[in-house]
Amino acid sequence: MSEDGSAPTRLVLFAGTTRTAEIDGLSAAGADPEVMVHTPSADAEILEYGEPVRAPVVPVSPSGCPTPAVVTRAVRELADFETTVVDAGLAEPTAAPTVTVGARPGEDVRASDPVSTAPGAFAAAREFGRRIPDEEVLVAETIPGGTTTALGVLTALGEEFGVSSSLPDNPVDQKREVVAEALDASGLEPGDAAGDPRLAVRRAGDPVQASAAGFVVGAAQSGTRVTLAGGTQMVAVAALARHAGLDAPLSLATTQFVADDPAADLRAAAVDFDFDLTVTDPGFDAADSPAMARYVAGEAKEGVGMGGALALADREGIEMARVRDRIRSVYDHLLDGEADPTDSETADAPR
Amino acid sequence: MSEDGSAPTRLVLFAGTTRTAEIDGLSAAGADPEVMVHTPSADAEILEYGEPVRAPVVPVSPSGCPTPAVVTRAVRELADFETTVVDAGLAEPTAAPTVTVGARPGEDVRASDPVSTAPGAFAAAREFGRRIPDEEVLVAETIPGGTTTALGVLTALGEEFGVSSSLPDNPVDQKREVVAEALDASGLEPGDAAGDPRLAVRRAGDPVQASAAGFVVGAAQSGTRVTLAGGTQMVAVAALARHAGLDAPLSLATTQFVADDPAADLRAAAVDFDFDLTVTDPGFDAADSPAMARYVAGEAKEGVGMGGALALADREGIEMARVRDRIRSVYDHLLDGEADPTDSETADAPR
Repeated sequence: MSEDGSAPTRLVLFAGTTRTAEIDGLSAAGADPEVMVHTPSADAEILEYGEPVRAPVVPVSPSGCPTPAVVTRAVRELADFETTVVDAGLAEPTAAPTVTVGARPGEDVRASDPVSTAPGAFAAAREFGRRIPDEEVLVAETIPGGTTTALGVLTALGEEFGVSSSLPDNPVDQKREVVAEALDASGLEPGDAAGDPRLAVRRAGDPVQASAAGFVVGAAQSGTRVTLAGGTQMVAVAALARHAGLDAPLSLATTQFVADDPAADLRAAAVDFDFDLTVTDPGFDAADSPAMARYVAGEAKEGVGMGGALALADREGIEMARVRDRIRSVYDHLLDGEADPTDSETADAPR
Repeated sequence: MSEDGSAPTRLVLFAGTTRTAEIDGLSAAGADPEVMVHTPSADAEILEYGEPVRAPVVPVSPSGCPTPAVVTRAVRELADFETTVVDAGLAEPTAAPTVTVGARPGEDVRASDPVSTAPGAFAAAREFGRRIPDEEVLVAETIPGGTTTALGVLTALGEEFGVSSSLPDNPVDQKREVVAEALDASGLEPGDAAGDPRLAVRRAGDPVQASAAGFVVGAAQSGTRVTLAGGTQMVAVAALARHAGLDAPLSLATTQFVADDPAADLRAAAVDFDFDLTVTDPGFDAADSPAMARYVAGEAKEGVGMGGALALADREGIEMARVRDRIRSVYDHLLDGEADPTDSETADAPR
């Protein structure tokens, strides 16, 4: 909370699910869908409380790669910003407080109408964005399977951009196949949804995109500074907002891990969708930490607003070494049993 | 957020409704129930955002007495604590993020089963309280009509304590009549629910009490320090927790306005329900402010954790003059039209 009474920066996390994540091999390798479906609920709790509270999972992959929620939480403990979670289609309960916009869990994009709540969620979130009094918002996401639905939306809009992955080996061909099937099921050709973002997200996207895009449009149109805090999933949200006719300025803040990903051409997207691009390197390669080494190896890369949180820390002059220290303590706390080990199980990679 | 990584203090606001508030003359004089039903939703938004966001009302009475949410928000802008809102039976939408415990709006206590969700909400909130990782929580409420249901619960439990009022002239006789009818409708005599808090709150209480009492039991039993932040409504919650068998320490922090109320014997309650009592005087009589003068005249008195927030400010060494300055600026902001005047209307007294 700022001392001068001005509205502070707020990170708004859109947390939801799509059954697209259940497709074998698409999201984190070997992940059990029964566990992964809890990840957004757990991420919201880690952001708000520092650990899972109601969610029965700790989103850490078998290789020890923690959810990026750990990074955002660590920065939150050091920097001056508020957090708000929007229920953008959660499938499992969370103890994190959430704002309701009417989103329901998304079906597999290969279904004929996978995100039937998209138009309503877009409208409700736009109204929420319009009325939120903050001067600046960071818009973040947590949804397993979200890079596939990002490709779905971009393709439906006729925008040719590659998407990143939470996996070191991006299953690009499989994503393209799923997206082709998704468009087929809706009788759409690539580009058929240009200028119609609600159609694109309803037929080939997920409820997080619908809610986040609506919020971005409402907030930016009413004069709030908007930073998309994330990677290619947030590029899809930028595309939706632009196709909705938004012409206010946008920024996107992400990690070096996404910027270094050859599958994603962020700089081209920044030109086409007219956003300023901030890339922050948390210096994980300088850290003697197995958790951070997984990021350096190409796992996870981004999510839960990680890149935006790092950019905020940088802007506030908080040194990355201090951020890394705090990441270590949040992570250790997650694993040391204080996070209610009696009913927790270790989940596979979070997204 | 504390710099040393320790879990900070969290104010948990239980926001809900009971149709008991619709009884003429019971809650704020002249209040229109159609407006008052929005008050808890608006209070939650003022706490989280500094102004109503989705709620179509500004809870300020015709005499200019603002909701105590203004005070708690002002302290929140100066002191170091987190806030979480629990949906404890909201009847209208709110843009504040809320935790779900399964509470539904309460019926008029004179109905035969006015709070059918009480047992479920008590259990879910107890589990939430058990798992919340904070070292210290403040438990607050916003529910119009809540002092009448406080009397209902105390009577059902066989505890003879008077309750306060948001009105300068406490309609004590009318409250007693309503409570007598409420017990009648459930076939209960005073004291019949002793040792059975779920029965007391289900038949003669409201969903905020059920949720808050469950949370208090779960949090205190798991070693979290619990301060009941409020007046006689929080005495009822303390009674429910004690009748549920809780023997962990409890504190109650309230305002001078409640402590000065001859209708409420807080010190006797502190002995009987074994809680430490902290009373904070915000020095409103020293302020040249029409808004604060309404409190000095006996309106509102407490609510939305006001007394607990003031105690926190005092503990952190924040001077009351500074708190009063900030109250002024939050209040001015509420009224100056920045809070979306196009669709707001001035509500009657908030509780």
